[in-house]
Amino acid sequence: MTSTQISPDTGLFSPVRAGTPAEAATTDTACLQAMLDTEAALARVQARLGAVPESAARAIAAAARAEHFDLSELAVQARGAANPVVPLVRRLTALVAAKDADAAHSVHQGSTSQDILDTGLMLVAARTLDLILSDLDRTADALARLAARHRDTPMAARTLGQHAVPTTFGLKAAGRLQGVLDARDRLRRVREAGLPVQLGGAAGTMAGYLEYALLHVPDAADDGGRRYIQELPAALAAELGLAEPLVPWHTVRTPLADLGAALALLTSALGSVAADVQLLSRTETGEVAEPAAEGRGTSSAMPHKRNPALSALIRSAAYQVPSLVGTLTQVSVHDDERPAGAWHAEWLPLRDCLRLAGGAAHTAAELTEGLTVHEDRMRANLDLTGGLVVSERLAALLSVELGRAEAKTLLAGVSAEAAATGRHLADVLAEAPALTGRHSAAGLRELSDPAHYTGAAGQLVDRVLDRYEGERATVRSAPGQSTRLSRSSPMQG
Amino acid sequence: MTSTQISPDTGLFSPVRAGTPAEAATTDTACLQAMLDTEAALARVQARLGAVPESAARAIAAAARAEHFDLSELAVQARGAANPVVPLVRRLTALVAAKDADAAHSVHQGSTSQDILDTGLMLVAARTLDLILSDLDRTADALARLAARHRDTPMAARTLGQHAVPTTFGLKAAGRLQGVLDARDRLRRVREAGLPVQLGGAAGTMAGYLEYALLHVPDAADDGGRRYIQELPAALAAELGLAEPLVPWHTVRTPLADLGAALALLTSALGSVAADVQLLSRTETGEVAEPAAEGRGTSSAMPHKRNPALSALIRSAAYQVPSLVGTLTQVSVHDDERPAGAWHAEWLPLRDCLRLAGGAAHTAAELTEGLTVHEDRMRANLDLTGGLVVSERLAALLSVELGRAEAKTLLAGVSAEAAATGRHLADVLAEAPALTGRHSAAGLRELSDPAHYTGAAGQLVDRVLDRYEGERATVRSAPGQSTRLSRSSPMQG
Amino acid sequence: MTSTQISPDTGLFSPVRAGTPAEAATTDTACLQAMLDTEAALARVQARLGAVPESAARAIAAAARAEHFDLSELAVQARGAANPVVPLVRRLTALVAAKDADAAHSVHQGSTSQDILDTGLMLVAARTLDLILSDLDRTADALARLAARHRDTPMAARTLGQHAVPTTFGLKAAGRLQGVLDARDRLRRVREAGLPVQLGGAAGTMAGYLEYALLHVPDAADDGGRRYIQELPAALAAELGLAEPLVPWHTVRTPLADLGAALALLTSALGSVAADVQLLSRTETGEVAEPAAEGRGTSSAMPHKRNPALSALIRSAAYQVPSLVGTLTQVSVHDDERPAGAWHAEWLPLRDCLRLAGGAAHTAAELTEGLTVHEDRMRANLDLTGGLVVSERLAALLSVELGRAEAKTLLAGVSAEAAATGRHLADVLAEAPALTGRHSAAGLRELSDPAHYTGAAGQLVDRVLDRYEGERATVRSAPGQSTRLSRSSPMQG
Amino acid sequence: MTSTQISPDTGLFSPVRAGTPAEAATTDTACLQAMLDTEAALARVQARLGAVPESAARAIAAAARAEHFDLSELAVQARGAANPVVPLVRRLTALVAAKDADAAHSVHQGSTSQDILDTGLMLVAARTLDLILSDLDRTADALARLAARHRDTPMAARTLGQHAVPTTFGLKAAGRLQGVLDARDRLRRVREAGLPVQLGGAAGTMAGYLEYALLHVPDAADDGGRRYIQELPAALAAELGLAEPLVPWHTVRTPLADLGAALALLTSALGSVAADVQLLSRTETGEVAEPAAEGRGTSSAMPHKRNPALSALIRSAAYQVPSLVGTLTQVSVHDDERPAGAWHAEWLPLRDCLRLAGGAAHTAAELTEGLTVHEDRMRANLDLTGGLVVSERLAALLSVELGRAEAKTLLAGVSAEAAATGRHLADVLAEAPALTGRHSAAGLRELSDPAHYTGAAGQLVDRVLDRYEGERATVRSAPGQSTRLSRSSPMQG
Repeated sequence: MTSTQISPDTGLFSPVRAGTPAEAATTDTACLQAMLDTEAALARVQARLGAVPESAARAIAAAARAEHFDLSELAVQARGAANPVVPLVRRLTALVAAKDADAAHSVHQGSTSQDILDTGLMLVAARTLDLILSDLDRTADALARLAARHRDTPMAARTLGQHAVPTTFGLKAAGRLQGVLDARDRLRRVREAGLPVQLGGAAGTMAGYLEYALLHVPDAADDGGRRYIQELPAALAAELGLAEPLVPWHTVRTPLADLGAALALLTSALGSVAADVQLLSRTETGEVAEPAAEGRGTSSAMPHKRNPALSALIRSAAYQVPSLVGTLTQVSVHDDERPAGAWHAEWLPLRDCLRLAGGAAHTAAELTEGLTVHEDRMRANLDLTGGLVVSERLAALLSVELGRAEAKTLLAGVSAEAAATGRHLADVLAEAPALTGRHSAAGLRELSDPAHYTGAAGQLVDRVLDRYEGERATVRSAPGQSTRLSRSSPMQG
Repeated sequence: MTSTQISPDTGLFSPVRAGTPAEAATTDTACLQAMLDTEAALARVQARLGAVPESAARAIAAAARAEHFDLSELAVQARGAANPVVPLVRRLTALVAAKDADAAHSVHQGSTSQDILDTGLMLVAARTLDLILSDLDRTADALARLAARHRDTPMAARTLGQHAVPTTFGLKAAGRLQGVLDARDRLRRVREAGLPVQLGGAAGTMAGYLEYALLHVPDAADDGGRRYIQELPAALAAELGLAEPLVPWHTVRTPLADLGAALALLTSALGSVAADVQLLSRTETGEVAEPAAEGRGTSSAMPHKRNPALSALIRSAAYQVPSLVGTLTQVSVHDDERPAGAWHAEWLPLRDCLRLAGGAAHTAAELTEGLTVHEDRMRANLDLTGGLVVSERLAALLSVELGRAEAKTLLAGVSAEAAATGRHLADVLAEAPALTGRHSAAGLRELSDPAHYTGAAGQLVDRVLDRYEGERATVRSAPGQSTRLSRSSPMQG
Repeated sequence: MTSTQISPDTGLFSPVRAGTPAEAATTDTACLQAMLDTEAALARVQARLGAVPESAARAIAAAARAEHFDLSELAVQARGAANPVVPLVRRLTALVAAKDADAAHSVHQGSTSQDILDTGLMLVAARTLDLILSDLDRTADALARLAARHRDTPMAARTLGQHAVPTTFGLKAAGRLQGVLDARDRLRRVREAGLPVQLGGAAGTMAGYLEYALLHVPDAADDGGRRYIQELPAALAAELGLAEPLVPWHTVRTPLADLGAALALLTSALGSVAADVQLLSRTETGEVAEPAAEGRGTSSAMPHKRNPALSALIRSAAYQVPSLVGTLTQVSVHDDERPAGAWHAEWLPLRDCLRLAGGAAHTAAELTEGLTVHEDRMRANLDLTGGLVVSERLAALLSVELGRAEAKTLLAGVSAEAAATGRHLADVLAEAPALTGRHSAAGLRELSDPAHYTGAAGQLVDRVLDRYEGERATVRSAPGQSTRLSRSSPMQG
Repeated sequence: MTSTQISPDTGLFSPVRAGTPAEAATTDTACLQAMLDTEAALARVQARLGAVPESAARAIAAAARAEHFDLSELAVQARGAANPVVPLVRRLTALVAAKDADAAHSVHQGSTSQDILDTGLMLVAARTLDLILSDLDRTADALARLAARHRDTPMAARTLGQHAVPTTFGLKAAGRLQGVLDARDRLRRVREAGLPVQLGGAAGTMAGYLEYALLHVPDAADDGGRRYIQELPAALAAELGLAEPLVPWHTVRTPLADLGAALALLTSALGSVAADVQLLSRTETGEVAEPAAEGRGTSSAMPHKRNPALSALIRSAAYQVPSLVGTLTQVSVHDDERPAGAWHAEWLPLRDCLRLAGGAAHTAAELTEGLTVHEDRMRANLDLTGGLVVSERLAALLSVELGRAEAKTLLAGVSAEAAATGRHLADVLAEAPALTGRHSAAGLRELSDPAHYTGAAGQLVDRVLDRYEGERATVRSAPGQSTRLSRSSPMQG
């Protein structure tokens, strides 16, 4: 089969990432380039340390351009050794040799496929995480604005789908912000220190690198190459902007585990935003709406419909990532010095996780920045149960006045009557003999106003916003952004 | 972002499927064409039933060619409605209108995105299953030949990695054949009756199809369209070579569940073949070797090494498919009349399952057809434990002679001595006072020959081969293949 | 640690199965008994075939009672050989020996731990499936009654949470019935032919069984034991009510794969019922309600609340089973003649799947049998969008009259105006100049009555009910049940 | 069904945890007690802050003993509200009321089921993590001793099952130590700051707690209860030894995600130890052996066999935990203020993860502390390939002398001849014309001694041991343990 028969995969079945920055950062071309960047950087640092001629490093860097490689051909040839680095090195060597025969000897010197592939994937991860973190900043900003603006906007809290007690939309937004900040924290930690270069040689002893150093580097033999072995990984890490590993991690897959866990936390956090939008935008509820845009949410069959398309996209990622991370975890037992299949099963799921998470992050920024909030529908829905939504408060109050058991019995009866007759709970309650002389109907109406029973919601919103502002201050330098969000308190103003 | 920035995905990180028939059958282009084939077939059968002009159906079919569509553009536009069918229909309509304005009215008539996408995926699945089944036939043939040829080749059976009792390589091959036949059986069942067209309209009531029929089909109104509704799905199924559904299955995802389960069974069956090859080809064991081929199994760091690359490829698929099927199962709860995310999360995992399973099937055919078997190493390894591998037999025999408890004690002592001294179990046993006069050393040697204690292995091999031949006879018609495999019995001849 | 320190696990954290028949069928005691039943049956059939004395078989059966075993002690001792059968056999042998020293020699004769454990688990599965199938029959009956009774009850179909077009509650129920029938079909198939006994001996060659037969059975040696090997598994299968395997399946785990897939399909089908109930019973929607019962759905904090507790229980199972089945699939690659860990990882997930699925089936029967349907709320919600829910119909009609493009433009404008002003679509449409003289306002009102646009819903309901009745007729014999369900057609009557 | 019909689950099917400390810490009784501890602590801190009478808090603490509750009854009653806290509170209230009617009013004051259940699970997790960390310390110590002792013990490194280049057993042990240290680090982090109390009230607004404070605490109203809301969670966290949350995390499940990820990393690290033991202890390889113990590794069918049972147990956990963590991730999208099913699906997987990981940790300590290492077999296996295992070194050397291409060609030919004839690579090489005058046979023998080509293995071992000692110094205070491990260098001494 010739390579031209293979058509590109374009995200046709994965619109959550179609056209997003994370997609561009994770294409086969981008991954190939990352592996070539690794080969070039390896030659460069070996040259700097004296194990490779400078001219060879330059020749290698010049040849290490993805456009000189036929991806489909590489992919098919990868079947021979079960990984794409073997044909990549073969082709790279030929390219270098065509320009500088001597330099070809320095290609991939002392190295092994896994060093190049693992480092290449870490590089792809690093580049994608930078994009994701940028989109997460946008999402966090948008959620913080929503939390601040709606700090005191009352709405029904729902548990198991039923109205429970009142809450505020600000607290809901703050909860989602908290999730996003948690995920951002884990992702930053991984980005900063959790993406190490891989540099172990054929079986993790660094023997190949050491052997060439002892052969080429003038004074390497003086200490048996110890200093060289110390310096090589550090230099490569610096060159590529990745972390320096303590030792080769061919069979200790902690970096993938941490990365996978952080990406799963991210899609969970973003999926939760989407899930809330989906429930709140249901036709009967109508409390929020996705941002309107040309061509957005159109149904091919129903011209009038505006579907919550962005939420659906985000959730499609949130559904897929956990299982992909599960694969990474399942294959994380790497036996011997390199397992036959477990390593090879990491590449696709890892790339898909990065892509899906990156697509979800980009989509979530768009969703949260443009979310429409219908405060009137929130209030109208809150009143649907005629005061039942504050029965917890009345139970607390009456249990102090009447004792807990009597209060419970009274409320159960009154609630049943209110539900059956459609009358407001306060009105039914006002007629209860047990309360005669204790509360006026108006007082009971006041007590049972949902807007007056949002608990510590505002205070809790503030705690999350304080965290958000603290993390923003330490991380971003843009001066205009360090101002404190104004936190509206419409119900109290 | 313009579409040209998106480079193709080529299997660079998934060599198990690179260049295989299943890859070609599941590209984005192939999937797009399958959806277009669905639109064309829908128009054709509507035309046949009178709901669409014949000329319109012809115009639609002419336009429904993947090469007229820009995949990357479709993918990005798919974000608008969270699925690619909306822009596909828009573009198809424009293409048709450019040739025949009236015909454009008949594009996607009465339909909905899910009808096209689900049917398209079933079509992709059907086409890929045909390829997989063909590769499975090859693998089954190869395993059957191995089972027949090595029906009586003794080797050590290993449980928890330790030699247990003797078995035969034929029985091992027959066991793997049994697994492959099971998977083939499930896949055939799915292929024949389990891949239905989807035809429900906007929300599964077929209202759109019915409405247009009542408007256009002369006598449809006579029975309220009942006959039309009966005939439309049957006709579409026949047109596309798919199954006819009882009712629309927008929210009843049994077809995907059955398909996913069958594919997971397949990669498990093939992964088991690969796992055995990996263990038996370990340097210390050396009982089998992968087929040699140019560029196969080369290591970039170790020029002498011949890696079991095909096995590694197959296992890389076997590790990934279960989690992908897990995703399909996790999202199989489709609420309402179409869920927001669960449906959208099916596409990628399903396609990846087909690809990975297809790649594994193709690779397994190559692996099993070329497997080298080293009978001498099997025999040498079998003798490694100096008769301990038949201690079960001796235990049976001696427990009849001495009673179970005494036999057990005797054997434990004798085995310990044999293990400690490196002497053969039979020789140590011959000196045991309890056996004086019962058995000669030569007799004990004979009794403890592993080749004489393979139990019913040959008979069990025959049972599996009988199944294999029975299924081959009923399914394939090639006359030359119906002959019975000759089943060698070298140990008995 | 003494066994008395271990307290029982009771389903405290798994209320979906607490107190259900499936729980009782899957306790540790029940599983232990199943393994003991296997030992007893094995002795019995060996006795029948002459390989074991009849008296020994009787003694073994008498001792093989779970109450003679200390479960906690067995569990701890199971660590020694990594499976519980080794200490079980030791204890069983001691129990038998205490009564009949000779009989003790016949305990577990020729067998291996995996034969007993695998067969025991198949027995547990068979017993639990019988209970599940019974609960599934109840659920199918209840869903069929709902589908028949509400065959023509109009309600809003929702896609991505938004009203799409009208459907009927009957079609929704029929869809769920279809899912349940699919699952029942797969489970029946597994129950009838998919749960084989395991009988391979130490490494699947049946050597131990054969050896003892050759030693004890008078004429076994005449044919080298062929007939005995043929008869033993068939006899054991008949004895235990399980299927006869073609060959031992120590390393070919198809039975677990089929069982797991069927159980996952089941919890998906039941989870879909629960998901619909949850969405339809949301406070704002209120179209269905769970059956009321003492103590059901109570919230500790909100005395008035009636939570959809049964649905939550069912979904808790539906969320867990896919991953557990995923484990079964992940570990289904059994290398060598017995893998070190993969086999051992099957037991707990398989038992949990049975329990969770069994609990969900029992709970679903209760849920569906008592479901309350609020037709009035369905109608009220259907009218929420002022006719927009039938815009598809109007689009079809008008595109015939005006051409598709003009119809689309007209409807988009009219829909926007209707949505903005809150007027009914029909009324706005009646004023459109393009329709002047074509339709009266009353006619448009009639055309846009959602109850008149349910497509082929009734016909589709009938197809599922026909399947249901067909399967009921062939499987159940109760004469009173073979009558056809009356299918109400209130809208047409 | 009465509770007495339910027999205990004892780990019969999960021997990896049977009888281990983690099992005892996670029984239903232990979990029930943790929830009761939470109720008692909540009353105590509310009392300390003035919202509950001190006498009531004492009465509640006195009643909150697991032995006063019938677990099976609770489990069945848990079906009513879909969680066990509702009947637990009912029973606790009755117990308190029986002693002190007034105190009963203070039971569960202002609280909600999720506060109690989530906090209870965090408590169970904290207690189990303490046990796991202790076992991990043992395992780390044992691996460190192995790494130090065998720092320079040469053995074959194997990639894809084939001998690659030499490595040392010390480096293998150090790699496994590195994995265990990574996991311990993540688990410590979670234990110290990642297990927060849950305190949100009915829907996360803390309204119930606040309402009662405003009613009971003298000066709470002065600041609208702000200080009380600030203090309550901090006080509860201190009381229970858990972390203080920023805000309630009812719908932000980061703690479970972090805990799950850390447990999965742990079982991966331990599973990798087990996998290596399994491969190295295979009959043909025999380089390590599990610790011998009474009843360990016995096979019911093969009296002579010593199975690697501990490894099998550990891997059984490593196979199961990833999917269970996958469930936790899949259900981590908590919509509304409490989802119907997703929360309920967390309990069992979380408990099982803790149990399996705890059992694996305990088993791994036993395995690593008693592991037998056969240096002679390592050396013998290393020599199996007659020098081919150092062909990488020769390639490096010769490519300097001859150029890379010529060296490669020469080595390929020589390796093939050595493999075909069984001669040592050095001897064949010595005859190569290209090397005439360059190397003596003796020199080539020396160069191709595997023990001289272990690269930087010793240096890498030291890096991991330095980490190990550094982390031990900071965490543990036992003075005797702070001494540096002696790191043997037999090859260099």
